[in-house]
Amino acid sequence: MHSLDFLQEKINTSFDLREDSYFNRAFLREPNELYEPIAYAMSQGGKRIRPLLTLMGADLFQGDLDKALYPAHGVEILHNFTLLHDDIMDLSPLRRGEETVYKKFGTNAAILSGDTMFALAFKYILEEEFVSMSSPLEVISIMNTLNTASIEICQGQAMDMAFEKREDVSIEEYIEMIRLKTAVLLAAALKMGAISSGAKKEDIDNLYSFGENIGLAFQLQDDILDCWSNLEDFGKVTGTDIADNKKTFLYLKALERANPSQKEELLNYFSSHSFDRMEKEMAVKKIYEDLNIRSIAKEKMQEYHDNAMKSLEKIEIDILRKANLIKFAEMLMVRNK
Amino acid sequence: MHSLDFLQEKINTSFDLREDSYFNRAFLREPNELYEPIAYAMSQGGKRIRPLLTLMGADLFQGDLDKALYPAHGVEILHNFTLLHDDIMDLSPLRRGEETVYKKFGTNAAILSGDTMFALAFKYILEEEFVSMSSPLEVISIMNTLNTASIEICQGQAMDMAFEKREDVSIEEYIEMIRLKTAVLLAAALKMGAISSGAKKEDIDNLYSFGENIGLAFQLQDDILDCWSNLEDFGKVTGTDIADNKKTFLYLKALERANPSQKEELLNYFSSHSFDRMEKEMAVKKIYEDLNIRSIAKEKMQEYHDNAMKSLEKIEIDILRKANLIKFAEMLMVRNK
Repeated sequence: MHSLDFLQEKINTSFDLREDSYFNRAFLREPNELYEPIAYAMSQGGKRIRPLLTLMGADLFQGDLDKALYPAHGVEILHNFTLLHDDIMDLSPLRRGEETVYKKFGTNAAILSGDTMFALAFKYILEEEFVSMSSPLEVISIMNTLNTASIEICQGQAMDMAFEKREDVSIEEYIEMIRLKTAVLLAAALKMGAISSGAKKEDIDNLYSFGENIGLAFQLQDDILDCWSNLEDFGKVTGTDIADNKKTFLYLKALERANPSQKEELLNYFSSHSFDRMEKEMAVKKIYEDLNIRSIAKEKMQEYHDNAMKSLEKIEIDILRKANLIKFAEMLMVRNK
Repeated sequence: MHSLDFLQEKINTSFDLREDSYFNRAFLREPNELYEPIAYAMSQGGKRIRPLLTLMGADLFQGDLDKALYPAHGVEILHNFTLLHDDIMDLSPLRRGEETVYKKFGTNAAILSGDTMFALAFKYILEEEFVSMSSPLEVISIMNTLNTASIEICQGQAMDMAFEKREDVSIEEYIEMIRLKTAVLLAAALKMGAISSGAKKEDIDNLYSFGENIGLAFQLQDDILDCWSNLEDFGKVTGTDIADNKKTFLYLKALERANPSQKEELLNYFSSHSFDRMEKEMAVKKIYEDLNIRSIAKEKMQEYHDNAMKSLEKIEIDILRKANLIKFAEMLMVRNK
């Protein structure tokens, strides 16, 4: 088994656009109008969590890591495509502290480069080198995993946008939305690694379930960090969910538990963008704190974490091989960004 | 062999969203915010040329037409996805005489529904039913064909947008742009049908080349029709290429052949959007006519048509089986819309 640091380093090197790697040579270079925004988006970095998960999924079943790099590149470029298009839809000016692609290159370039990245995601998996290392049914199964996830991400994003206009979003619906928008791709990343290593079906399904639950915990942690973190630690502006009237778990749970006057205050604050940002944030956070929302969210996160661990236990391999995934899940729980 | 009418009817029925067909049951229905724009785009119709080509490609090699319907649906939904996103980029208000998706549902819905359609295109090919009818390598090859075409279409669209800002576009570059933007998907449509029927590699390559050349002829015909057709026949507003300063084959060939004063006039007209539309159209068409551009374009079209026929001849099957493709190519040459 490889250490988490080794896997992370392998991912970082492989995604370094300055390296003379196979993946860089395979990278689309023409025309420049298309290449530049893609290279910009991919070089902005980020944590590369999804490709790391693919390598971890492969390593769990003693698979070939160089082989797993193909779906790892696929999932990361697909993820970045979704960010690119989401940023257009959400009018987000910044991503990872830098201008978003649509701000820097214009909306049309961002739409088209995003589309191309979507196709490139599949291209990595259809590469001759990868196909020749794999059984054809493995390739189809990996394609199917990535494609299904991409449809589900679109469904999640559509639900997210629809929620903005709705007053009656349930917590169940919110969980389903973040499952589709965030969790399934983390699960798919792990699953593709496992498939590429020839894991058996039940183990793959349990690993997928681990990923889905970790993904839900991850998103709840994100909601919590957006509310209670600070800019330096989190790496992005905090309090944006409240400013944007985003119906997060925190908000929906608060509504559920609020007394009539708190409910009225919350509904009022979340019905407009014209409030003073600081005043609104403080008032809403006061209600969250009075209603113990942070603890409740942390409990819910823990619940998903526990579910993830249960799924991981069911996978029929030596527990020692599971150490990386256990460590990774722990890191997600205590992260501050 | 089946008649062209039979194949067209099979396609029309299969794409009728009111039918209780497998393809409709497989169609994504949730959430409604995502489904509605997709259903709207797909129900706008159009000529369904690409799926027809897939069936023709399959029929050429006596393949199973019901099996070929899967990639046929894939290629048509992919094509409609490209139109949907192109309409956003080009700010086109109308498509097939109706409001475009982004005009009717908004830009965000159009971006996201387009992304979903892209994924659905691959979903049809990854469907269990299709995979179970096919050899796994066939499925991979079909996926690869569609994916490569989609990357090339993005490249073509990027070139097309870049040409708007350039004064030095060569005819060669223009041909490469329309090859990528239009021809490769027609070629890919045929190729997927042939692959699904187990055709041998050389025959598939020759059929692809037939499709590419037909595609180039098709686009030149489009340029000609946009200039010299009338609204009722063509089904869309004519003269738009001139009004939009689009650097078509006609314009580039005219520039090449123009005397200094004609060249100055052309460059002047194509440098601004502020001219009176009718006056500009008449003046530019006058230059085109003086320079014999229509005949030259028709000759070029004929050249591609002849190349297509040569590729078709090389395919090692009874010439009688080729009748549909020959007829189809003829129809393209004399169409008025």
